[in-house]
Amino acid sequence: MTIRVVVWGENVHEQTNAVVRGIYPNGMHACIADALNEHAAIDAGTATLQEAEHGLPQARLDETNVLLWWGHAAHGDVDDAVVERVAEAVWSGMGLIVLHSGHFSKIFKRLMGTPCNLSWREAGERERIWVTAPNHPITAGLPQFFELESEEMYGEPFGIPEPDETVMIGWFQGGEVFRSGVTYRRGAGRVFYFQPGHETYPTYHDPMVRQVLRNAVLWAYNGEPRLTAVTDAPNRPVEKAPEKITARGPRLHADGEEGFR
Amino acid sequence: MTIRVVVWGENVHEQTNAVVRGIYPNGMHACIADALNEHAAIDAGTATLQEAEHGLPQARLDETNVLLWWGHAAHGDVDDAVVERVAEAVWSGMGLIVLHSGHFSKIFKRLMGTPCNLSWREAGERERIWVTAPNHPITAGLPQFFELESEEMYGEPFGIPEPDETVMIGWFQGGEVFRSGVTYRRGAGRVFYFQPGHETYPTYHDPMVRQVLRNAVLWAYNGEPRLTAVTDAPNRPVEKAPEKITARGPRLHADGEEGFR
Amino acid sequence: MTIRVVVWGENVHEQTNAVVRGIYPNGMHACIADALNEHAAIDAGTATLQEAEHGLPQARLDETNVLLWWGHAAHGDVDDAVVERVAEAVWSGMGLIVLHSGHFSKIFKRLMGTPCNLSWREAGERERIWVTAPNHPITAGLPQFFELESEEMYGEPFGIPEPDETVMIGWFQGGEVFRSGVTYRRGAGRVFYFQPGHETYPTYHDPMVRQVLRNAVLWAYNGEPRLTAVTDAPNRPVEKAPEKITARGPRLHADGEEGFR
Amino acid sequence: MTIRVVVWGENVHEQTNAVVRGIYPNGMHACIADALNEHAAIDAGTATLQEAEHGLPQARLDETNVLLWWGHAAHGDVDDAVVERVAEAVWSGMGLIVLHSGHFSKIFKRLMGTPCNLSWREAGERERIWVTAPNHPITAGLPQFFELESEEMYGEPFGIPEPDETVMIGWFQGGEVFRSGVTYRRGAGRVFYFQPGHETYPTYHDPMVRQVLRNAVLWAYNGEPRLTAVTDAPNRPVEKAPEKITARGPRLHADGEEGFR
Repeated sequence: MTIRVVVWGENVHEQTNAVVRGIYPNGMHACIADALNEHAAIDAGTATLQEAEHGLPQARLDETNVLLWWGHAAHGDVDDAVVERVAEAVWSGMGLIVLHSGHFSKIFKRLMGTPCNLSWREAGERERIWVTAPNHPITAGLPQFFELESEEMYGEPFGIPEPDETVMIGWFQGGEVFRSGVTYRRGAGRVFYFQPGHETYPTYHDPMVRQVLRNAVLWAYNGEPRLTAVTDAPNRPVEKAPEKITARGPRLHADGEEGFR
Repeated sequence: MTIRVVVWGENVHEQTNAVVRGIYPNGMHACIADALNEHAAIDAGTATLQEAEHGLPQARLDETNVLLWWGHAAHGDVDDAVVERVAEAVWSGMGLIVLHSGHFSKIFKRLMGTPCNLSWREAGERERIWVTAPNHPITAGLPQFFELESEEMYGEPFGIPEPDETVMIGWFQGGEVFRSGVTYRRGAGRVFYFQPGHETYPTYHDPMVRQVLRNAVLWAYNGEPRLTAVTDAPNRPVEKAPEKITARGPRLHADGEEGFR
Repeated sequence: MTIRVVVWGENVHEQTNAVVRGIYPNGMHACIADALNEHAAIDAGTATLQEAEHGLPQARLDETNVLLWWGHAAHGDVDDAVVERVAEAVWSGMGLIVLHSGHFSKIFKRLMGTPCNLSWREAGERERIWVTAPNHPITAGLPQFFELESEEMYGEPFGIPEPDETVMIGWFQGGEVFRSGVTYRRGAGRVFYFQPGHETYPTYHDPMVRQVLRNAVLWAYNGEPRLTAVTDAPNRPVEKAPEKITARGPRLHADGEEGFR
Repeated sequence: MTIRVVVWGENVHEQTNAVVRGIYPNGMHACIADALNEHAAIDAGTATLQEAEHGLPQARLDETNVLLWWGHAAHGDVDDAVVERVAEAVWSGMGLIVLHSGHFSKIFKRLMGTPCNLSWREAGERERIWVTAPNHPITAGLPQFFELESEEMYGEPFGIPEPDETVMIGWFQGGEVFRSGVTYRRGAGRVFYFQPGHETYPTYHDPMVRQVLRNAVLWAYNGEPRLTAVTDAPNRPVEKAPEKITARGPRLHADGEEGFR
């Protein structure tokens, strides 16, 4: 089994900010892909905002099992058509892992149906991430907690729907808390949001963070053939009803007519 | 206590289809509002697609506790700005009850983050709705099940996120099942989807259906002052951190700068 | 409307520990009941371990809308029959609010189906409780966070099922986090667990804590007539099937026979 | 990878009822184990009520990845100590699949915290099971629905907590519906309840049912080392607090003392 993964990176601050370039000389996406490729079953490549169709043409999404998404400064530059394409891929079975400032990405907001907002502070403070669901596939092999000496504070309330599962909660030195690891199912696709990853800190070099990312890919992987027609609303006519019935009463739709959308 | 309710009706088939007009001579929305006004604590008015801003200007939403939504043929004609306005009202605490073909309304899809699709058949068949959560506020006073002699079949799979609660499941004569009553929380707003209500049948004259609608309004009502700034992501600067900390490390943002969106 | 509430207190450390008696001279249960009675719609009394049937005979539970439970040193002394009686009351519609060390009470473990364990430290450290669900009925009127200058540390992982809703999360000075306010539905009864309340600190004198308790009572209240026969598994014989069917095939049970349990 | 599975069968009606013996000459548990062993990664054995410790000594549970449970006539004969042992195994990471009349087993009620009751009818009627979560690991490869020509009717309301996921819903010829496939997480263990399987019908010979069972085993499998001390509530003393703090205020517990239970 090989899990085909694409790490999508906005790739803006790596080009414009010397601090970020210093930490991630090949881009954050490359660093994250490297972390994933340490697992034998994962084959991770990258895509960036600047590529044609942001590196996510339909054909590539069709063969992607899990997509990771890191964006920050240029959420608004992501083409709506690509966002919708990614959403359909998720509903049809592709896994999606949204990272850090990706909480405000179009795709995360699209799939959550909520503002996905939070409070924040950029102070290099210490974060301690607690595992609330030991031995969950995403927390496999982790200690009870791990620490990041410097992270951006993300604080509650986090404007998300009630998660299917809360698997990690972050403690911040400045006094805040945050649901740092939460899961959702959207159609046949599994979605994981993971809070660490501010670009001016070396978060994606941290061994614990890298393990979480690998775990999350394994968890989000759905080996079944992708669903098709995931937005269709098919008519099942009377003669194909599982139980024999006879039509009666007034109707809006003639035989074979499509429903309204 | 008075619960201020607006019943939003698309008001299309009532104007164009004699069958529908025969059943609902004043419009479906008026019939639904009448059902609600049978409860002393509810004060229900109506709004329609054809009114300015679809009858939902900001000032009216601001003073609405619960909004009901019935649409079918003209989902695409609803202005995106109004949809977003309603979404923000829900996040800030307004209740929302989505009816029948409203599963494909822009507002429901917006809040769910999924296709909200289903299979369907217009055959006048019998539906029997089972209460799966007895004594839930939405099912209060209902028998174990109630029947609608003719309803449109809506069949699984229903393309929604896992509901917070499944309070009713429908059985159809033709052999299908459907999660006919499901609840969600989106921000501070409660959302209820209720499946019955095809316009060529007298569903909203049914006493059980009317009771569910009144129950749902009481359940969805949030008496607290509406939240403000529900999409903001406020910076909490170092000097306002709950615990005393000192900023350190590199930063992207200067003091007082807004975050990226 | 009057909400009839019983505050159940173990009433052990108030008798044996001078510090606790000093803070709660009339017992913790009395202090909590006083907090509730500040709301005009609530009529709260008390019950203690030492009373006959622990103060919870069937007749009293039958007329109780919401029960609060504080216990710590004597969980094992609570009669199993009373625990089962309370469980049935919850399933039939009574609200239950479990406080602090009540995480290890028989009734909470009975209703959760999990160990309900946690880590702990008694160091008088500061706790800051963050609201994760603003404008939820339980958090109504609260600020973004409130602080308790001294609380017992309760740390994750908390051995509970995934909550229906996580409405508050606690930050501890010593570095831990905890899901401090979580909700569940069990049958027709709503259940709320609230973490603060160590007996050697004046927690139940805190205005924010008192507000949460009042809010939780309003939220947990179910005004419907209590369900009956909540553990029965009724046979619905062929002649009473909603749809006409004819029995066929081999059977284990003769007509009118009860099912196995 | 080999998934070690034990199929627990009550093995009563196979011995006492000629119809059941005719359908399952080697016992229902053997038939179910055969279905599982058709998958190369699964190594399934059996255990029965009549064996010492019901075939579930601690050493065997320790090496079991997933346990399936079928019981009906003799729930009361299952030793409470074995039930608690199984519960701890689930919390520590063992998967559990509860079948049909196992809804009333001690272990299922223990893990749910609710009555787990339902209504029922033994009439050989047709059931049609709809997939509500296409491409979920448990429904992988299934058609939209499958039919069992004869099953015992199990009807709502089903006295369970709100499921983490509802993956299948059953339609019954006599007019009822049932949440036929529901999932839960309890500690590190995944739990699946699957409704079909009345002993007087050949349900476990059905190819679709057998596929669901295999799928469920793969889904419930947790390859991580089993958690230990899953019911402990460890004290984390001041000197081991992640952040440096100083103890202050009154205390109940001396250093090193255990907490109350």
